[in-house]
Amino acid sequence: MPERKLTREELLAKAKKPGEDALKLHPFYRGKIEMVPKCVIRDFNDFAIWYTPGVAQTCRLIEKDKEKVYENTNKWNTVAVVSDGTRVLGLGNIGPEAGLPVMEGKALLFKYLGGVDAFPICLDTKNADEIITAVKWLQPSFGGINLEDIEKPKCFYILDKLREEMEIPVWHDDQQGTAAITLAGLFNALKIVKKDIDKVKVSMVGAGAANMAIARLLIFAGVLPGNIVMTDSRGILHPDRGDIDREKDKKKWDICLKTNSDKKRGGIREAMEGTDVCIACSKPGPGTIKPEWVKGMAKDSIIFAMANPIPEMWPWEAKEAGARIFATGRSDFPNQVNNSLGFPGIFRGALDVRARTITDEMCVAAAREIARCAEDKGLSEEYIVPNMDEWEVFPREAVAVGMKAIEQGVARVNITEEELYKKASSIIKRARDTVKILMEEKIIPQAPGD
Amino acid sequence: MPERKLTREELLAKAKKPGEDALKLHPFYRGKIEMVPKCVIRDFNDFAIWYTPGVAQTCRLIEKDKEKVYENTNKWNTVAVVSDGTRVLGLGNIGPEAGLPVMEGKALLFKYLGGVDAFPICLDTKNADEIITAVKWLQPSFGGINLEDIEKPKCFYILDKLREEMEIPVWHDDQQGTAAITLAGLFNALKIVKKDIDKVKVSMVGAGAANMAIARLLIFAGVLPGNIVMTDSRGILHPDRGDIDREKDKKKWDICLKTNSDKKRGGIREAMEGTDVCIACSKPGPGTIKPEWVKGMAKDSIIFAMANPIPEMWPWEAKEAGARIFATGRSDFPNQVNNSLGFPGIFRGALDVRARTITDEMCVAAAREIARCAEDKGLSEEYIVPNMDEWEVFPREAVAVGMKAIEQGVARVNITEEELYKKASSIIKRARDTVKILMEEKIIPQAPGD
Repeated sequence: MPERKLTREELLAKAKKPGEDALKLHPFYRGKIEMVPKCVIRDFNDFAIWYTPGVAQTCRLIEKDKEKVYENTNKWNTVAVVSDGTRVLGLGNIGPEAGLPVMEGKALLFKYLGGVDAFPICLDTKNADEIITAVKWLQPSFGGINLEDIEKPKCFYILDKLREEMEIPVWHDDQQGTAAITLAGLFNALKIVKKDIDKVKVSMVGAGAANMAIARLLIFAGVLPGNIVMTDSRGILHPDRGDIDREKDKKKWDICLKTNSDKKRGGIREAMEGTDVCIACSKPGPGTIKPEWVKGMAKDSIIFAMANPIPEMWPWEAKEAGARIFATGRSDFPNQVNNSLGFPGIFRGALDVRARTITDEMCVAAAREIARCAEDKGLSEEYIVPNMDEWEVFPREAVAVGMKAIEQGVARVNITEEELYKKASSIIKRARDTVKILMEEKIIPQAPGD
Repeated sequence: MPERKLTREELLAKAKKPGEDALKLHPFYRGKIEMVPKCVIRDFNDFAIWYTPGVAQTCRLIEKDKEKVYENTNKWNTVAVVSDGTRVLGLGNIGPEAGLPVMEGKALLFKYLGGVDAFPICLDTKNADEIITAVKWLQPSFGGINLEDIEKPKCFYILDKLREEMEIPVWHDDQQGTAAITLAGLFNALKIVKKDIDKVKVSMVGAGAANMAIARLLIFAGVLPGNIVMTDSRGILHPDRGDIDREKDKKKWDICLKTNSDKKRGGIREAMEGTDVCIACSKPGPGTIKPEWVKGMAKDSIIFAMANPIPEMWPWEAKEAGARIFATGRSDFPNQVNNSLGFPGIFRGALDVRARTITDEMCVAAAREIARCAEDKGLSEEYIVPNMDEWEVFPREAVAVGMKAIEQGVARVNITEEELYKKASSIIKRARDTVKILMEEKIIPQAPGD
């Protein structure tokens, strides 16, 4: 973690290093994931079992009972990472080919952290209804769908429609994933400052997919809608905002109607004033949030500044201005609020109980368990969420999510907490062991220069 | 290879064994292929290279030049195995879920024999235009498309249309794959009997996707169209066949018009009479082709009886009736004409030169090279094609296909024959080594009872 003596230039140089490495290592490895056999091939006769003629018996079994596909193929563990490339990272609409390295990266995280077989599907259409149609056509091969980097507002429509119409879980990580891990961080931050979730006032900077989903989950978890005040690029959202298209931007309009019971007007400064918590998912800083504005917040203020690659303000600026807890999306500052802590474990749980969907209750259960993982190690102002390398987080999340699914009747199979923990742990351990072995055996070659 | 003393019942019992094993082993392994990391994960900091923030640089590179996706992702080596489940093996229209074990099996063969990362896509639509649309939407993620087990006549339309409109190779293995390996067998059979391809008369039993494609490739390779006579379930195809829908069944009607210059009429017996070669891809035997009919063929007759699981007639029946060379689709008889000898090497070559398509010339080049592989080991009446475990077949095919693509101007990259052989060999060897290591390390567990 950098000392505050690092200058902005030094930080920027440091921030550039992964990009430089990416340009060297991507053409060396030419892909981040590959298909590998997972069944025995003792000799060539085994192909008569795995392919024609033997496989026909398995096909007949599934023809008679479609659910048997979960026991006889890899569907049970397979997730599509689906994007149209319209909102890739902070890069915007760069197209499906340019989005592929990110979707492959996501698949890598899915496997390494959650033991999930994820396959990147970059679609050559940007039309919302066509994306919906494509995903529905793909359903037989997959146990779940992870939507990724699709622009708003169509991402809301696509997610809602697919959640309604699909028989397998559909998830948009930029919405639910970010919301779950933010909520986890908030749960712990509130424990430290000893404030109750149903009493805190929350300012939210930015009205993108992430903050919209966070607002929904916050309310679901107990924050009073009237205690939230959200800003977009034109300022605070309220019912007099005539510039918002009530049809096209339903979600934003809904926020205008149900939040901000203090009837605040103005910009970020006014929104933040007197609030206990500020959650910013807006534009990269520093300077997006000014220290003076933090001074106007309530005592023991909590700030999530999650823009990438530079948060809306520097951590030391926030601290000097009086913030008690400060979190970002970066791994080199304390309190990294990182989606990768969520989706691998959440899908692990959903897949292991063959959930039909991932409900908001399952998200909140995941958030509570993520929070508990950090709590078990001892919370501090600089440790409100676990780190990505605390691997027990993922099976624990899986259990929380899977048990909630069973409780809510959206699971297709029943399993005890102990069995699920054992199963999830062993699948994740196997994934990590595989990487270790493939590196030791040089099937995954060393990076040049290592 | 069974002696002829095995009874039909014994053969059937033997033929049932792989199916019994399949029912045991499919639920044990729960899938045949999985996604595995192929890039280094030295520690958690590497995720900043493979995912955000580092990956953004690679995305930008591809945004500027779309072709760079081949060097920076796994697209270069990734093939979709696409089916709608309408004609799975001999089982007919069993649906996409029931087809999934077969598509996974195909992916397994793709990897083990050709080093190709194939992913099974079972589509939840049976509409030809929707299948075409789906495949076009999927294009950005893939380097090639393998259509599989799609019913005729729509499979012809889908293949033709996609070959026209896609920028990556589209292949229907039940058409081109079967044709290529049959042609390979025919090349060698003709060498043994010392007959010229442009003089032989060929009877073809069955007018399905396989025989239609075989006829096209035979003509392309030198068989005179008039020297072919084909039957469907109603007998010989000729221009007086009023029952054939000239619009819906264009391909069949085309055969009626251009083959059969002897103006034969009748059924299989009459079609076979006096021909040098009989190629049957029709209904399982024995008894579909009768020994008497073989007696009516020309001297040194060659028969391909490729129905599964039981060929149109038994090998000993054919031999007793005077056939000199007899081939089937089965691994337990000599001369197994097996698609698995084709597609892994053909795609290996097409992918390694980034071919835009797989032309008929590339198919014929593959067939000639497969034939040469067997020839190099010494042809005999019981050895006209290589066996699946002769692994050098696949890189040799890859070279033949890749070089032809370069010659025809459909390759995106240039490479020498030597480089291509080395590249293809090392990719295939790596795939086999991976399986070996994963089995040794018990990542792929032993089969129960082993």
